Amino acid sequence: MTTEHLVIFTPSGKRGRFPEGTPVLQAARQLGVDLDSVCGGRGICSKCQITPSYGEFPKHGVTVQDGALSEWNSVEERYKSKRGLIDGRRLGCQAKVMGDIVIDVPPESQVHRQVVRKAATARDITMDLATRLFFIEVREPDMEEPTGDLERMAEALKLQWEIDNVRVDASVIGKLQTTLRKGKWQVTVALFQDHRGEAPRIVEIWPGLHEGGLFGLAIDLGSTTIAAHLCDLATGEVKASSGVMNPQIRFGEDLMSRVSYAMMNANGASEMTKAVRVAINGLVQSLATEAGVDPSLIFEAVIVCNPVMHHLLLGIDPVELGQAPFALATSNSLSLNAIDLDLDQVNKRARVYLLPCIAGHVGADAAAVALSEEPNKSEDLALIVDVGTNAEILLGNKTKVLACSSPTGPAFEGAQISAGQRAAPGAIERIEIDPVTKEPRFRVIGVDLWSDDEGFSEAVAGSGITGICGSGIIEAVAEMRIAGILDPSGLIGSAEQVGTPRCVPEGRTNSYVIHDARAEGGPLISVTQGDIRAIQLAKSALYAGARLLMDEMGVEKVDRVVLAGAFGAHISPKHAMVLGMIPDVPLEKVFSAGNAAGTGARIALLNKASRSEIEKTVHQIKKIETAIEPRFQEHFVNANAIPHAKDPFPELSKIVSLPQVGFNTKGDGGDGGRRRRRG
Amino acid sequence: MTTEHLVIFTPSGKRGRFPEGTPVLQAARQLGVDLDSVCGGRGICSKCQITPSYGEFPKHGVTVQDGALSEWNSVEERYKSKRGLIDGRRLGCQAKVMGDIVIDVPPESQVHRQVVRKAATARDITMDLATRLFFIEVREPDMEEPTGDLERMAEALKLQWEIDNVRVDASVIGKLQTTLRKGKWQVTVALFQDHRGEAPRIVEIWPGLHEGGLFGLAIDLGSTTIAAHLCDLATGEVKASSGVMNPQIRFGEDLMSRVSYAMMNANGASEMTKAVRVAINGLVQSLATEAGVDPSLIFEAVIVCNPVMHHLLLGIDPVELGQAPFALATSNSLSLNAIDLDLDQVNKRARVYLLPCIAGHVGADAAAVALSEEPNKSEDLALIVDVGTNAEILLGNKTKVLACSSPTGPAFEGAQISAGQRAAPGAIERIEIDPVTKEPRFRVIGVDLWSDDEGFSEAVAGSGITGICGSGIIEAVAEMRIAGILDPSGLIGSAEQVGTPRCVPEGRTNSYVIHDARAEGGPLISVTQGDIRAIQLAKSALYAGARLLMDEMGVEKVDRVVLAGAFGAHISPKHAMVLGMIPDVPLEKVFSAGNAAGTGARIALLNKASRSEIEKTVHQIKKIETAIEPRFQEHFVNANAIPHAKDPFPELSKIVSLPQVGFNTKGDGGDGGRRRRRG
Repeated sequence: MTTEHLVIFTPSGKRGRFPEGTPVLQAARQLGVDLDSVCGGRGICSKCQITPSYGEFPKHGVTVQDGALSEWNSVEERYKSKRGLIDGRRLGCQAKVMGDIVIDVPPESQVHRQVVRKAATARDITMDLATRLFFIEVREPDMEEPTGDLERMAEALKLQWEIDNVRVDASVIGKLQTTLRKGKWQVTVALFQDHRGEAPRIVEIWPGLHEGGLFGLAIDLGSTTIAAHLCDLATGEVKASSGVMNPQIRFGEDLMSRVSYAMMNANGASEMTKAVRVAINGLVQSLATEAGVDPSLIFEAVIVCNPVMHHLLLGIDPVELGQAPFALATSNSLSLNAIDLDLDQVNKRARVYLLPCIAGHVGADAAAVALSEEPNKSEDLALIVDVGTNAEILLGNKTKVLACSSPTGPAFEGAQISAGQRAAPGAIERIEIDPVTKEPRFRVIGVDLWSDDEGFSEAVAGSGITGICGSGIIEAVAEMRIAGILDPSGLIGSAEQVGTPRCVPEGRTNSYVIHDARAEGGPLISVTQGDIRAIQLAKSALYAGARLLMDEMGVEKVDRVVLAGAFGAHISPKHAMVLGMIPDVPLEKVFSAGNAAGTGARIALLNKASRSEIEKTVHQIKKIETAIEPRFQEHFVNANAIPHAKDPFPELSKIVSLPQVGFNTKGDGGDGGRRRRRG
Repeated sequence: MTTEHLVIFTPSGKRGRFPEGTPVLQAARQLGVDLDSVCGGRGICSKCQITPSYGEFPKHGVTVQDGALSEWNSVEERYKSKRGLIDGRRLGCQAKVMGDIVIDVPPESQVHRQVVRKAATARDITMDLATRLFFIEVREPDMEEPTGDLERMAEALKLQWEIDNVRVDASVIGKLQTTLRKGKWQVTVALFQDHRGEAPRIVEIWPGLHEGGLFGLAIDLGSTTIAAHLCDLATGEVKASSGVMNPQIRFGEDLMSRVSYAMMNANGASEMTKAVRVAINGLVQSLATEAGVDPSLIFEAVIVCNPVMHHLLLGIDPVELGQAPFALATSNSLSLNAIDLDLDQVNKRARVYLLPCIAGHVGADAAAVALSEEPNKSEDLALIVDVGTNAEILLGNKTKVLACSSPTGPAFEGAQISAGQRAAPGAIERIEIDPVTKEPRFRVIGVDLWSDDEGFSEAVAGSGITGICGSGIIEAVAEMRIAGILDPSGLIGSAEQVGTPRCVPEGRTNSYVIHDARAEGGPLISVTQGDIRAIQLAKSALYAGARLLMDEMGVEKVDRVVLAGAFGAHISPKHAMVLGMIPDVPLEKVFSAGNAAGTGARIALLNKASRSEIEKTVHQIKKIETAIEPRFQEHFVNANAIPHAKDPFPELSKIVSLPQVGFNTKGDGGDGGRRRRRG
């Protein structure tokens, strides 16, 4: 009988006895230990690296002696000399069990390894890819048994990887024969395995061992901005992130104007479909270039978006989303070929996954936020606000989750703001206004100094000071209110009323000048009465949506607020609360989740089990329709003011004394100059 | 308790007792009687027509009285007045059981009805379609339960038809909402259900009841000719049939010249791929026009072809098929999107099924012949020869089937023949030569008279006499041999040797003039020595292939011969045997199967179970490789002569006395003028 030895794997703690000479990889597989391998134990892919431990292990009740693994062999030596191997590491497929042994599987050797997310409150992502690589050795053809190369390849996948019933596109079959012969009957295949149990598809084939990696896209398709991460599917790492304006803006700034455009123009919907697809292709191309990634190695994309963007991306006329009952063409998740969406800057057999929509006005982006922030697993009552041109709002805990969307308009993204701009170098992102002197200081994106710090002028010379981004305008309005430049109704005082020459008349209202570089040929950056009205409308819509959910939940307050959105991370919680964007909670209970929708997309990209999870979760989320809810209008109207009354920040109250009555100017009442000008 | 009545269905004989008032359709479904319905019993599709029988039925032990079915109702009346209904017919969904009843289900009301094939020896085809229509009523959207239209449609398919887990392309989702609303939430969907158990796919949707039908294509993609049937999938009927030359001919006349072209030219394979796809599109377009069929109603195509055509159609470089071990890129059947093969003259979501290949030189066309002719079910030993540029040969019975292919070249299709042409009006298709006078008489395609019949000149005036088609050249050569114009080596005698001025010198050899219209500005149609050599090469290859299989089977003779091929139906068995194309069997044991490959394609089109069947069958067929088999060469050389020695037709021997020695002319020996000229 063969001698058997105890093998203990860490960190899993899995253990078993194996005959002397068993390769570590084989022992790991038999125990179900998560040890990666692409080459199937041939000593060429190095994915199965392990670290043997020697010495006494009282915890495990074992003593590991030298010689517990077979000697370092020529395969490992060749690998180390060619590619490098950390000292102490062995290849699991080469090292054989020769005595009792404790073996550590380092994170990078685990298939289901954790990807650490930056946001402190967020769980990590466990890698569980839909597209994976498999190295196979294919039997050579034989005249006696005339099966095709593809059939022998399928046989190899079955025998060497226990993967059965593979499907393949005609375009892969076309390159099969040359690739197999170039690889001398050794090839790597990329296999896409759907989370819904469809037959696995061979999406790519390379001669020999493919070492160029696999990449994927997590795309957050917003009404105003399209943001995307290009991820390395081997490590989960984000290789490049970028955003572009959604070119559909030229057809309408907010969702309902785009729906109207589709209604009023025969080819309106298809024009918008084409525009967004072209923009995504451009974005993908620039991401690939930035990261130095071959676009044909991008095999998957996960896209999240609101229902109107969702339909326009898919080539569906969104007209039904513009009228009750706001019927979606499809609400379930979709798994499509990228090429069916004209996405041609990726591998031509790449797959696209679209998260499910929650309802006609609560889209796959809200689902992605739910996947990322998991209100359905929260112990306390969390209000999650994804701020964008359309805000997605989730309220709930593990007993119940409600969702709605609220049409905030593009003001929070710096659009419809006189000096507004995208968050880019040169944009003012932080503002403070001295409540006594009414003088502003600010910071611009890309520069670490404040505008009154020494060296600021030199530091800002590159980008210039070009405008105000979304987080900047929020701070500006809140600071103007704190400094007494705005009255509670949102009216900007005159120079005399406020006591600063920065308040200048503009038409029948006033503006507040933040930065005036006109003398040097630069811009005039000011906050106009119209800007204030736009922000008031946006924040009222946001607040009304949150209140509506609180009413439905039967609560007067929430335990915590999570600000999300492409620029959610940049919003100052204090200013958001001064402005009345969000219900009052203690400041330390306001968290920033960054681009939670984008993160949700990234989770779905890296972990296919999460796709099943969110598909299940969305059915448990109760959707509230703001568009037909009278209380929404009521909350909206009530939220228009910036009363600064329920002030949660005593430290602010100490600094500023707020005017209790409004300014009286030229008949422009509290209902907003912008509305009247437009009306 | 409700009264129950006995219901007996014919022709199935299925019977059961049902409560009074049960609709006949429901009774049929419960008993598993094959009664069609698209609308699911709503009285609008008329597919469930039945004929009740009244009176005494001693065989069934029942007497059916008037009133055994509910009275003719307004739904039936409306249907009859609008669309017509044969007298005595009822709609199974409207007529309710009110007494013991015998109900006949006419063939056209059966889903699995039989399509009668013309060839007398062939079994009928049982309809069992992969693409079928389903009429559904979809629940309207509701704000309270925000599922998408697609999800409610899937729900309807599940509730109303027990079809679960449907998939849908993005392009169908795009038209979902308008179609549902146009149809007032009643729509017809076309569902493709793969024979391999993949999830069903919605491939089309129409408002209300779709009455425009569904169509499919059975395509026989040959080296020289592409032939196709356009079939009505409702009836199985062939609506139009047509053929075009394979434009790949310009890259090489036979398979190996095309493989060479691909080897010698960088884009050779893709040029040929493009050419054949364009030609198929053109053919489909002309078929649809001819049949008056909307191309977007063509949902399926089944394509059969030899391995080189198969690979070139798929965009696979066929280079491996040109060298041992003749490895196919893929041998299994393929189920693809038509659009992946650039087939754009069909519905854009149409599917293509390619039959499996048997081996590197024995393709899906041979598999289709096997499906049509079923040698694997034959009691006697059948030799099936599919004559084309490449001949597919099957030999076997229910214990064993062997297959090979043989490179006959295009001579049998009238190509490489001096006066050769496609089988089309004006082509000589039958020839007789008087053994005494050596004068020919002939018939041309499209005219029922022989050339020496009265009125022939007038009858032929339309088309003219333009050339000789494949069957014509076979008869010509055989008749020339019978008439002593050819010696056993295949040499044409001179005018003096043969004793007719129709033998005229041409270079160093002689030609035999069949028709000379040069005086009237018409063509000279003659058989040259080169033509004889081409036919000798072709028939030797065919015969050698058959002999090789017989050797492998260990037999000296076969029980029957089936001649197949696009023009197989037109070959005269007698002449084929005189020529030595096929082994000797009694003349009544030679059958014509017409275009058996095309028929196999049609079977696979109309009966999806046959796809599984042939996929299983091909694995049981043993393939013999002619290209590397020394005995093939031996048989080929031995078969070159036209000895007419083992004459199975005593009646011929009585008529003609064959010259026992060859003609001696100008040094052109028995190895063929054509070869030497080319060499």
